[in-house]
Amino acid sequence: MTPDAIRFGAATDKKALEEGAVFAPRFDAAGLIPVIAVDDATGEVMMLAWMNEAALRLTLATGEAHYFSRSRNEIWHKGATSGQIQRVVSMATDCDQDALVLRVVPLGDGKCCHTGRTHCFYRRVEVSADGATRLNFIQK
Amino acid sequence: MTPDAIRFGAATDKKALEEGAVFAPRFDAAGLIPVIAVDDATGEVMMLAWMNEAALRLTLATGEAHYFSRSRNEIWHKGATSGQIQRVVSMATDCDQDALVLRVVPLGDGKCCHTGRTHCFYRRVEVSADGATRLNFIQK
Repeated sequence: MTPDAIRFGAATDKKALEEGAVFAPRFDAAGLIPVIAVDDATGEVMMLAWMNEAALRLTLATGEAHYFSRSRNEIWHKGATSGQIQRVVSMATDCDQDALVLRVVPLGDGKCCHTGRTHCFYRRVEVSADGATRLNFIQK
Repeated sequence: MTPDAIRFGAATDKKALEEGAVFAPRFDAAGLIPVIAVDDATGEVMMLAWMNEAALRLTLATGEAHYFSRSRNEIWHKGATSGQIQRVVSMATDCDQDALVLRVVPLGDGKCCHTGRTHCFYRRVEVSADGATRLNFIQK
């Protein structure tokens, strides 16, 4: 299937958006929608990234996660250079269809983050009694 | 602790941002950061919401999730009216500190979504062979 063959719908009202079967993804003013990638095997949140409509079409057409890189301002086929392809197991949308969850199988070396870790959320925020914050590494 | 007592840091370069212990949350042009709320008991993604700096301070100071409602344009103490308070178990930030994961215990009736469900991602996106999309309910 080509990306252009993918057809989205339109939600005519709040009820259709929230309780309907029509997929009407809502992109923000910059044309982007946030996407939470979850490791299908562990259920762990791996990363938060963004898709524009073209990236969403590519993801649905190919079964591999494509994002939109805001820093490089271009479509980003995750793993095209690193080998860390994300094979899509399922995609879900939220109540008002302005966010997506992708359940994926991470291929290649199974990692995800450009820092060399399996996921991006490797530091926990801690707060001292005096209000100072610091980050504590939960994955080295 | 009062919200004003919470102190964030500043990351002077990419290395400090990604590999440092300084919490330097990066808000977008609208002053917001996306937050993924995860049910601490099940690991399930419950919702994606947003915090501004004040909401983040309130969350860290009180241990209860506070978001910023983009539709109402105001701080939103989750559960203040519904009883669905989210007690924060932990907060993590990602590599470039522009997204957060909150692990929470959902109080009240244990639900999360304004539609009456335990989480917001209750519909899966499905694609037919001809490219048509539809949503399939995974939670009624």
